[in-house]
Amino acid sequence: MSTQPLPTGTRDVLAEEMRELRAIETSLLALFGARGYEEVATPTIEYQDAFARGAGPEGTATYRFLDESGSVLALRNDMTVPIARLVARRFAGAPGPFRLAYSGSVYRRVRPQRGQLREMRQIGVELIGAEAPAGTAELVELLVASLDAIGLQRAVIGLGDADLFPSLLGELGVNGPAADRILERLADHDLVAIEDEAGDLAELGEAERATIVALSNLRGGPEVLDRARALGGPAIERASATLAETLETLAAAGVADRVQVDFGLLRDLGYYTGAILEVYDPAVGEAIGGGGRYDDLLGRFGSPRPAAGFALYLERLHVAQAAEQELGRP
Amino acid sequence: MSTQPLPTGTRDVLAEEMRELRAIETSLLALFGARGYEEVATPTIEYQDAFARGAGPEGTATYRFLDESGSVLALRNDMTVPIARLVARRFAGAPGPFRLAYSGSVYRRVRPQRGQLREMRQIGVELIGAEAPAGTAELVELLVASLDAIGLQRAVIGLGDADLFPSLLGELGVNGPAADRILERLADHDLVAIEDEAGDLAELGEAERATIVALSNLRGGPEVLDRARALGGPAIERASATLAETLETLAAAGVADRVQVDFGLLRDLGYYTGAILEVYDPAVGEAIGGGGRYDDLLGRFGSPRPAAGFALYLERLHVAQAAEQELGRP
Repeated sequence: MSTQPLPTGTRDVLAEEMRELRAIETSLLALFGARGYEEVATPTIEYQDAFARGAGPEGTATYRFLDESGSVLALRNDMTVPIARLVARRFAGAPGPFRLAYSGSVYRRVRPQRGQLREMRQIGVELIGAEAPAGTAELVELLVASLDAIGLQRAVIGLGDADLFPSLLGELGVNGPAADRILERLADHDLVAIEDEAGDLAELGEAERATIVALSNLRGGPEVLDRARALGGPAIERASATLAETLETLAAAGVADRVQVDFGLLRDLGYYTGAILEVYDPAVGEAIGGGGRYDDLLGRFGSPRPAAGFALYLERLHVAQAAEQELGRP
Repeated sequence: MSTQPLPTGTRDVLAEEMRELRAIETSLLALFGARGYEEVATPTIEYQDAFARGAGPEGTATYRFLDESGSVLALRNDMTVPIARLVARRFAGAPGPFRLAYSGSVYRRVRPQRGQLREMRQIGVELIGAEAPAGTAELVELLVASLDAIGLQRAVIGLGDADLFPSLLGELGVNGPAADRILERLADHDLVAIEDEAGDLAELGEAERATIVALSNLRGGPEVLDRARALGGPAIERASATLAETLETLAAAGVADRVQVDFGLLRDLGYYTGAILEVYDPAVGEAIGGGGRYDDLLGRFGSPRPAAGFALYLERLHVAQAAEQELGRP
């Protein structure tokens, strides 16, 4: 009799790995708790409406089915939208800010042969009711402490601005599907494709194409702020000013050296505003975490508040941690 | 703007409750680990085929959807079938026995207005490769230790026999849909409906009806074994002998006083054989846990081994624990 196969992108976790995943989870939840971020949980299944309301068309969850009364339910594809929904629903009258933590799985479509996870464990925090830049800096500082707590001293945090490219493209007269294609390529970190897309745009002059390509490649220490400003225009000026302000606050908190400014950073979830983050470790080919500000999201659930958060991706943290431990051996 | 509702049977867990749920989980996983039961995890999503292969038509999971290639995936409605699948797949060549633990959610259909959970947290163990009665006794002893570890000293373990009623009904010439109806009523613990169903069966004499009704109501200490035997017939004789043997092993382990023999016990999952368990606490109207032997299940995945396990239902443990703590206050 044949053994029973597993769907692509799903996996069993055996005892040794499970112990290590639990150790990472316990260590992060303890750190979050010590900083006042209390764990909550939301259902794995919600109305599809909730995801669409929170994240727009990008919020359409992959796995949908009908309940007993014919309503469309979906498996969550994100933790931030449900927690925003929870805060709007349960804490509407309270002053805040709210510091919440979570550990749970999200469910996403997988493309064949990419090694993607259909079920992905995320552990993270949301800070709801605290403005930029102080709220952003608190989160980055906690993110650095999280990476240190699990031994990922080599990990780097990319800091970008969610509004930069949408505004810049508007300024340059690139709108609709052409703008969407460039934004998608940015979210995929596909810099070659961005160059191709920009090259195809008849509405752009040579200098404007060069600005898009240069900006999407521009990352580094605080010195890149001036290089960005040299490219000109109000969108870049505004984003550079916001990034400079965040960096100053991070420097005051002593964690600026773990942060790299990345003008080409864009996240593929439809609720980010202002500062966005991605975490990279040299041992893992993809981001091991991400987050940012979502100052408009709570308003979509009827209870406007400034907010930001980050999630770390447990399976990738585990790969990174194993690589660090390997390096640490004599 | 209206707040976003949640589907029936789903809920947010706020910080205070989450702390208490985590404390129960941590305490049980630590106990399981100390006894050699190591935590593993299986995917939330598997092929619907895996559930049907493990549990038969009763294994049909409620929440189904298609993957990219058109295969039917399902949300797990049970933890035991996936762990049997895991052991058959990953440990086929190893001698065993295997002691595994888990903590995760299962997803079930809810009926309106019953307060049922669509997403239910279960924490439990599987002992794969150990025969009755010693394997069964090891599990009951661990179950008693689990209840003690979380302060549920008033909880009682019902011990029954999964084969009793199917065999007895066959002996009495009750087969097909009529037998299925009685078995369903037993699994629902609906004793009034059993009496009605038995009364409607033209194939039964008065004495046989009385046997079915009496047996479905028969529970208590070891003294009920003789009362069962007095009802006569080979199915009752065999079940009584098995139960007596299990009770002796439990008495030797010093935990027989926490166990109540229940001849009317039946579980609604399609893989139990021999000893079955349900756990009751006076503070909760439904079982707070259950389990039993499933000696045929591993064979369905190509790797036959005797096996048994139990699951505790985290949300109900929490209700029971809160009630115990209330009682303990001066």
